[in-house]
Amino acid sequence: MVQSVQRAVQILRLLSAGGPRLGLAELADRVGIAKPTVHALLRTLEAEGLVAQDRQTGKYVLGPGVLTLGNAFLETHELRMRSLTWADLLAARANEAVWVAVLTGDHVLVVHHAFRPEGAVQILEVGASIPWHTCALGKAIVAFLPEQRQAELLAGPLPPLTGCSIADPDALNDQLEQVRSSGYAQEDQESTLGDAGIAAPVFDRSGLAGAIGVVGPVERLLADGQNQDLAVKVREVARQLSRELGAGRAPLARALA
Amino acid sequence: MVQSVQRAVQILRLLSAGGPRLGLAELADRVGIAKPTVHALLRTLEAEGLVAQDRQTGKYVLGPGVLTLGNAFLETHELRMRSLTWADLLAARANEAVWVAVLTGDHVLVVHHAFRPEGAVQILEVGASIPWHTCALGKAIVAFLPEQRQAELLAGPLPPLTGCSIADPDALNDQLEQVRSSGYAQEDQESTLGDAGIAAPVFDRSGLAGAIGVVGPVERLLADGQNQDLAVKVREVARQLSRELGAGRAPLARALA
Repeated sequence: MVQSVQRAVQILRLLSAGGPRLGLAELADRVGIAKPTVHALLRTLEAEGLVAQDRQTGKYVLGPGVLTLGNAFLETHELRMRSLTWADLLAARANEAVWVAVLTGDHVLVVHHAFRPEGAVQILEVGASIPWHTCALGKAIVAFLPEQRQAELLAGPLPPLTGCSIADPDALNDQLEQVRSSGYAQEDQESTLGDAGIAAPVFDRSGLAGAIGVVGPVERLLADGQNQDLAVKVREVARQLSRELGAGRAPLARALA
Repeated sequence: MVQSVQRAVQILRLLSAGGPRLGLAELADRVGIAKPTVHALLRTLEAEGLVAQDRQTGKYVLGPGVLTLGNAFLETHELRMRSLTWADLLAARANEAVWVAVLTGDHVLVVHHAFRPEGAVQILEVGASIPWHTCALGKAIVAFLPEQRQAELLAGPLPPLTGCSIADPDALNDQLEQVRSSGYAQEDQESTLGDAGIAAPVFDRSGLAGAIGVVGPVERLLADGQNQDLAVKVREVARQLSRELGAGRAPLARALA
């Protein structure tokens, strides 16, 4: 590992956290290294456009270069790029918003968001990061991870986001079992009160790639019989997207039959 | 400057470029350093989530961490956050899409995009990067930069994007003069054929902050008399947003009177 790069990334993370803006002394204090070292790292990051300095206060903020990198991530992300038309198709069929996500650590990261066709103003959620155990996308992915990784994730932490979040590893493990037998995962207001989700795993050539699913008001998604109907649509699109990504028949037959 | 950090950023830039995915040897070749050094940098960036390795090919891609940073940039960007409601207001008043941008190097970076209220499906352009001289946003910003910086930017390069792009420094300089006297900049298909833009500069406590403007089909934006009407709306919102950002009366009176 290259220590100066680790420290540079640590500085970027500190600047991402929001809250009050940080100056040189605060950054040195939080990274736990001397001010001249932090200053050299900041000047390098600033020259590369990843950090900027507020002209008036002298405090540091993230620079525009990180947005350019984030955009490049999206534009070179195979699952995202391949999912664009499938997500639109699912949004049209289900008349709901569609999210595509990947697992990173113990959170899912939303890499694509297709708006609900009939919706009013909607906020783009690309880049949103959600604890895996509070959303259908996360459960759909984790259910198909290797057993040991599942056990690690179930061991927590499992912080609740709402009163409906499930923090009991056994209850979550039962849900994962159910995801494997039904081919889809469900969320009932576990990340946002009033919202629900239905998602299915997506596979590529080398295995599990992420998940795709619908997100919307609980009264629409989980109404009597409605969730079964949506689950069929979600699984169908997950299967088609997986085939396009080069997934073999065997994992698909096991997961999304 | 910290050389290992510069090299790490160089690797991230190479991975952003799209095109065929890069392996260790290609990266070492392009950065111009030994493979073990590049490998140590890649392992560090991978551990931090900024780089990922394709499981099947062993090639490297950007990791999800860069998207998280890009999102944090947007959420902590004062001009963007303050512009959200003003952009919506302008989009409603003008019934056109609205972009907010900052200058970075010789490009403008779109940090917010409010959709046209009546529009059909629209692609979100946040994160798009456009040469300053081919768009109204860029001209609106550059016109109010210190003279020396203007001269540097006018010295180019000024690569054309369409047959309508202006590559002549004198012609551009005349346009900048006009921006200063009228308080708004105009683009006539200089970045995309068929599209036009009208933009005005935005100021904050410490000076020039960026620009806000409308973007849309040339026949709608630049129709007889229409552009005057839109320019008034754009300037009005730029002035209100600037006041909210703490701009003093003097620069506003000079620029957006």
